[in-house]
Amino acid sequence: MNRQVVLATASHGIPQAHNFQIVEQAVPELASDEILVQNYFLSVEPAMRGWLSDKGNYSKPIRIGDVMRSIAVGRVAASRCDQYPVGTIVTGWFGWQETAVVTPTDVIRVVKEVDLPISLSLGVLGLNGMAAYLGLSLVGMPVAGDTVVVSTAAGGVGSIVGQVAKLLGCRTVGITGSEVKVRACRDLYQYDEAFDYSLPELAHRVAEACPNGVNVYFDNTAGAISDAVRANLAIGARIVVCGTASVSSWDPPPASSRVERDLLTKRARMQGFLAFDHRDRYESTVEKLAAWVREGKLVWQEDVLEGLEACPDAIAGLYRGENLGKRVIRLG
Amino acid sequence: MNRQVVLATASHGIPQAHNFQIVEQAVPELASDEILVQNYFLSVEPAMRGWLSDKGNYSKPIRIGDVMRSIAVGRVAASRCDQYPVGTIVTGWFGWQETAVVTPTDVIRVVKEVDLPISLSLGVLGLNGMAAYLGLSLVGMPVAGDTVVVSTAAGGVGSIVGQVAKLLGCRTVGITGSEVKVRACRDLYQYDEAFDYSLPELAHRVAEACPNGVNVYFDNTAGAISDAVRANLAIGARIVVCGTASVSSWDPPPASSRVERDLLTKRARMQGFLAFDHRDRYESTVEKLAAWVREGKLVWQEDVLEGLEACPDAIAGLYRGENLGKRVIRLG
Repeated sequence: MNRQVVLATASHGIPQAHNFQIVEQAVPELASDEILVQNYFLSVEPAMRGWLSDKGNYSKPIRIGDVMRSIAVGRVAASRCDQYPVGTIVTGWFGWQETAVVTPTDVIRVVKEVDLPISLSLGVLGLNGMAAYLGLSLVGMPVAGDTVVVSTAAGGVGSIVGQVAKLLGCRTVGITGSEVKVRACRDLYQYDEAFDYSLPELAHRVAEACPNGVNVYFDNTAGAISDAVRANLAIGARIVVCGTASVSSWDPPPASSRVERDLLTKRARMQGFLAFDHRDRYESTVEKLAAWVREGKLVWQEDVLEGLEACPDAIAGLYRGENLGKRVIRLG
Repeated sequence: MNRQVVLATASHGIPQAHNFQIVEQAVPELASDEILVQNYFLSVEPAMRGWLSDKGNYSKPIRIGDVMRSIAVGRVAASRCDQYPVGTIVTGWFGWQETAVVTPTDVIRVVKEVDLPISLSLGVLGLNGMAAYLGLSLVGMPVAGDTVVVSTAAGGVGSIVGQVAKLLGCRTVGITGSEVKVRACRDLYQYDEAFDYSLPELAHRVAEACPNGVNVYFDNTAGAISDAVRANLAIGARIVVCGTASVSSWDPPPASSRVERDLLTKRARMQGFLAFDHRDRYESTVEKLAAWVREGKLVWQEDVLEGLEACPDAIAGLYRGENLGKRVIRLG
């Protein structure tokens, strides 16, 4: 039997525990070209809110009764597909369930970095690493000496952005949500400066931390944090719009001060980035990030929840800010 | 004697006639390297509002008592500079005055297109043309088949953007402010579609005009027009932020709905553009635009006001939307 987390009721805004239900189903026979994956770790992403939204997003909305869409990492336990023999470690769209019967199109990649913890395929060597490295590189275009500001600076994506920017020779400033996270930014992720976004006069605090203005802002939050950073752009600044964690609902969109004059007077750029658009770059990116991990230059924290029962409340918990590092669910 | 338009009182928001004063001054003797320019045409720009603002802009604010900063075109009437002999037609930062004593750094370029009306150096072959062609090309990056939406579509910049985009093989949609301007968009500037921004349900109107979404939005207005266009972006859209004509004051900035989710889900880009950053491209751009003008492929309208007395109210008039095409002041 296979236990699964399915969508029980439509979610509006941030998905809560009561929107999900755990059900049990027989594992079907494998058809030709299918594989059976035993999931070891399931991912929890802030982006799942968007995947569940019935308002226009970049992916098809998940319907009631569907297994919750998720990237996972596991082992091929049975196979009718030569490309993925039994024993292969794979990551892909396997969903919030114990085992998944999938076709090759659901597999994102074979995990070759078996010297490293396989849960990293969901974090620093997974979607987080891809979003951080590729968003920073392709949209942020950092140059040594640039000031790079990161929101959710100690989070799964932010912590990688800060470290990569620092490795590239940038001055890094992290904005995060608690004293514990501020310490992680400074001590673990080597930010040059870090502070709590709940401080009064946030824009002034950003100005102090960025005396030459902000060249790159890697934005995981939107909201008041982004408005404060946008007030301090350097000429030619690049804003990577990667996530909107601080916005509790986009229906209707909340208000902000207009962005056009800041963008115009600073000849600045704000650009949305989705790692999924860049699958052709995943292998080379994993290779680079894995090398940094092995050299001890790129560190990470994981927030590991135990068992399928932890799934339903796990997204809401991210938005409550309770995780330190990448949140994953360990199975069995 | 030289008559000049000087700033009389600080302007907040849109500069009005009472903010200026006409004064008379003796023409000074030329120092070495200086030239005396007799101005034939003075320019009137929406951007002058920003030049007068004491809030951070891209240029030094104009102080009370200063001659109003302006691009102008005229003839070298006396010269102590070998580079610009008497009789040369030049355009540059000559200010709202009859004659200007300037140095070579104030000259933008020698006008070589003397077969064409010299007032074009302030419009289609001047700052308007540079902003339109370079902003569209460098930030908008149009490709044949793209849908290009333009605000202030019949204006000095917008009318050029629409025509250039059409010449490049794009589908063009113009948004403008009156029935007369809508007709100019359709009949003169060859937009595929054009409509008045005061129509109800603007976002719906944009959606109808752009069934495949908006690939490029050349934004001269900000405001409700831009919000309506932003609701209809295609994946990978580019927004050229070139002007904010619809915003009556940026102090404080007005509110809008947040832009981040539109940018993220559409992987879209919003970028500020200033033609002044690209002086190295002026000559090649003028050459291209002048060729199109001579072939009859690029048409223009001018709104010519007569005499220095027309200056003080001329900027406010632009914001009242009373001009059809590029506004200039003819002297003498």
